Amino acid sequence: MTAAAMISQVPGPVSKATTDKLNTIFDARAVHFVVDYDKSEGTYIVDVDGNKYLDVYSQIASIPVGYNNPALAAAAKSPEMISALINRPAIGNYPSAQWHDILQNGLLRAAPPGLDKIFTAQSGSEANELAYKAAFMLYRRKQRAVAGDAAWTPEEVSSCLDNAKPGSPALAILSFANSFHGRGFGSLSTTRSKAVHKLDIPAFDWPQAPFPQLRYPLAEHAAANDAEERRCLDRVEELITSWHCPVAGLIVEPVQSEGGDNHASPAFFQGLRALTRKHGVCLIVDEVQTGFGATGRFWGHEHWQLDAPPDMVTFSKKAQTAGYFFGNPMLVPDKAYRQFNTWIGDPARVLLSKAVVEEILDNKLVEQCARVGGVLYSELEKLASKYPTQIQNLRGKGKGTFIAFDVQDPAGFVAAMKKRGVNIGTCGVSTVRLRPMLIFDETHIPILINTIEAVVSAL
Amino acid sequence: MTAAAMISQVPGPVSKATTDKLNTIFDARAVHFVVDYDKSEGTYIVDVDGNKYLDVYSQIASIPVGYNNPALAAAAKSPEMISALINRPAIGNYPSAQWHDILQNGLLRAAPPGLDKIFTAQSGSEANELAYKAAFMLYRRKQRAVAGDAAWTPEEVSSCLDNAKPGSPALAILSFANSFHGRGFGSLSTTRSKAVHKLDIPAFDWPQAPFPQLRYPLAEHAAANDAEERRCLDRVEELITSWHCPVAGLIVEPVQSEGGDNHASPAFFQGLRALTRKHGVCLIVDEVQTGFGATGRFWGHEHWQLDAPPDMVTFSKKAQTAGYFFGNPMLVPDKAYRQFNTWIGDPARVLLSKAVVEEILDNKLVEQCARVGGVLYSELEKLASKYPTQIQNLRGKGKGTFIAFDVQDPAGFVAAMKKRGVNIGTCGVSTVRLRPMLIFDETHIPILINTIEAVVSAL
Repeated sequence: MTAAAMISQVPGPVSKATTDKLNTIFDARAVHFVVDYDKSEGTYIVDVDGNKYLDVYSQIASIPVGYNNPALAAAAKSPEMISALINRPAIGNYPSAQWHDILQNGLLRAAPPGLDKIFTAQSGSEANELAYKAAFMLYRRKQRAVAGDAAWTPEEVSSCLDNAKPGSPALAILSFANSFHGRGFGSLSTTRSKAVHKLDIPAFDWPQAPFPQLRYPLAEHAAANDAEERRCLDRVEELITSWHCPVAGLIVEPVQSEGGDNHASPAFFQGLRALTRKHGVCLIVDEVQTGFGATGRFWGHEHWQLDAPPDMVTFSKKAQTAGYFFGNPMLVPDKAYRQFNTWIGDPARVLLSKAVVEEILDNKLVEQCARVGGVLYSELEKLASKYPTQIQNLRGKGKGTFIAFDVQDPAGFVAAMKKRGVNIGTCGVSTVRLRPMLIFDETHIPILINTIEAVVSAL
Repeated sequence: MTAAAMISQVPGPVSKATTDKLNTIFDARAVHFVVDYDKSEGTYIVDVDGNKYLDVYSQIASIPVGYNNPALAAAAKSPEMISALINRPAIGNYPSAQWHDILQNGLLRAAPPGLDKIFTAQSGSEANELAYKAAFMLYRRKQRAVAGDAAWTPEEVSSCLDNAKPGSPALAILSFANSFHGRGFGSLSTTRSKAVHKLDIPAFDWPQAPFPQLRYPLAEHAAANDAEERRCLDRVEELITSWHCPVAGLIVEPVQSEGGDNHASPAFFQGLRALTRKHGVCLIVDEVQTGFGATGRFWGHEHWQLDAPPDMVTFSKKAQTAGYFFGNPMLVPDKAYRQFNTWIGDPARVLLSKAVVEEILDNKLVEQCARVGGVLYSELEKLASKYPTQIQNLRGKGKGTFIAFDVQDPAGFVAAMKKRGVNIGTCGVSTVRLRPMLIFDETHIPILINTIEAVVSAL
């Protein structure tokens, strides 16, 4: 399995027929191609027409260690996994005897520094919403503490059932323009990337701040970029202090992914940490796409060198499960059952996540990603110099393989890449994003680079 | 495995120590006891202290066919399951070749009459929110059709990114007092059961209608109950026609479960179908707890004998996965990617769901539940006659094992039942709800009845 091999058009006739059939019972309009997962292996994906692609999109950045990874297969066949699948608990009421150790020796081995507690979930969207709820409950708890009475009032208890104040308070989560935080009603209210995500869906009246729009190459625009980040930080503080209701939390991605791979400097994020601390706002870092190694650190926010950790860090995608980490015990609500649901995640997926963590740590895949990403970035830099109108705004230097660049016609670029055996994705308006798996290594770089060159040189 | 066997207090010392340890990394305050799932079997659950309980709570009504069910174990060990676990797709973009058949021969075999399409999800809360989004998009689509222009306006596209009108419209979902529909920001805005679910969390300004509060025994209060249902229907219509914004959807449980096992007659639900059709409101039936057989029909709403199916039916819990069924192709939004997310459910859980459907249909477990539930109800009726002050408002006749009754001290009742080897749950304010698995049969009835009698006779 070392080379792509294209047999048919993309999608091929079998993919097309399978998609048409699926579309009668399940919305299949977004299908790229139909996959033969049994034949897919490592960083190569094989479709039902027999086309084999180098996959640097990885199921929207969510395959961590390759298709049919043997260590994951072993975990999937284990008696623990069988039991987790067929004896699905209401974890909050009836956890298994093993639940503590599965968390402690799995996800918590990978916990961001300073955050030693966890709440499990099933999707990035759910993880973010749970973090928002924790932020809201903490905010009101602090308000009650200031007022000197921790008890819920009868008026709060009755009004909340009617979605009315004071029980259902007006409180906000601040997010950034071009951010993506999910598609639930709360998480979607913080998502600001594309109309297709949001149109026609009622939303909370929550604020959005501008996210720095940096110019590339960074070294040539240092002063302008600093000023841009300062402008955005000032606007964040202005929104926190002037919004029509209190801002209880601020959520930010280490790299705005769906919104176009927008980066900012450590200084910007340090500024956010300082502002949120100053104003008593929970800093929630959405590591759904950046977490689990792809930036060359286990967590994207480790690049920031913060002097105090974020309040909560959410994860999903490559974790193969979801949830949030936190450290402050006050983020556990004042009463049981407030942060609760029937399943509270899926132990089967959490077990798989433990195997993912082991595979990453045992094989030093984060270090590999940092190293390989460095080489890949250099090669792309050469290509960008050679084709300056076709490849623009190359970004992600020093961020592992979390690399992106702009092209004139992203859809056409992706189609041409697929035709040549590379499955690749876009984001934002004009951006191609690289999201290889952590097992992507030096041997794959020339395949990717040569294919990109073949496509851009033909433009 | 035919009898409970109690060794220690509940929770026992091992449960307590395990819970305390878990609580340092994961909120464990709601733990009833810690479970040895390897020793649990069929309808009996065994805790880490070796206590064996008849389980008629079933992980908050979510275990369908018993612990360590051999058919489910076979599915869990299958090559398809291994692949689904370790090669998790972004289903909307890269479905497997088998995905159509897994749906068609699994969940869709059990689809409610008239609803032959599906959208998959991971929790009941997510399923309901996806249904709300479909209802909102359909509502706006119909409005645009009436206006004669299906295109999105530039103003809509830009305003929605700012959570502002007209792109983010004021539209509502109507739900009922005492309902439970989940804990996301949209689903929680329709949940009206308990303050512990809702307090401090911002909510949409959506309407709630009263749900009929029937008096028992039904036969003795027929006229009053009819009037009560009429009153509630009138209020539903009043809210639909007078709310400050359009009501795009109405969600209702066939039996309000978390809210206290509140039933209504088929005539009431027929009235809801007529009103929602009259006013162009999507009727969403939340079968998260009632679906998959526990009412003696596969779907709770099959008891209603509607002349037109609901617009959407949501499911989770005993399905071991989640999602919604629908029939109207207009509920597929006008563009791809509007109803979308990275994973769109979990194929591993959908595969397990297929095994659950097969097990239920092959063993006629819905018919069994109807039959066993009838006997169980009769026995409880005798007990209620014998202990009229201890067991009140017995309800669920003809609804399989979906039976409940009120007691003076639900927490004390449940603790006493556990001490005697029956794991049982509560709901609402004063209600004990029976949620046995579908494999609960005639042999379990005397164990349950005798234990209830031992507890109530000692009060």
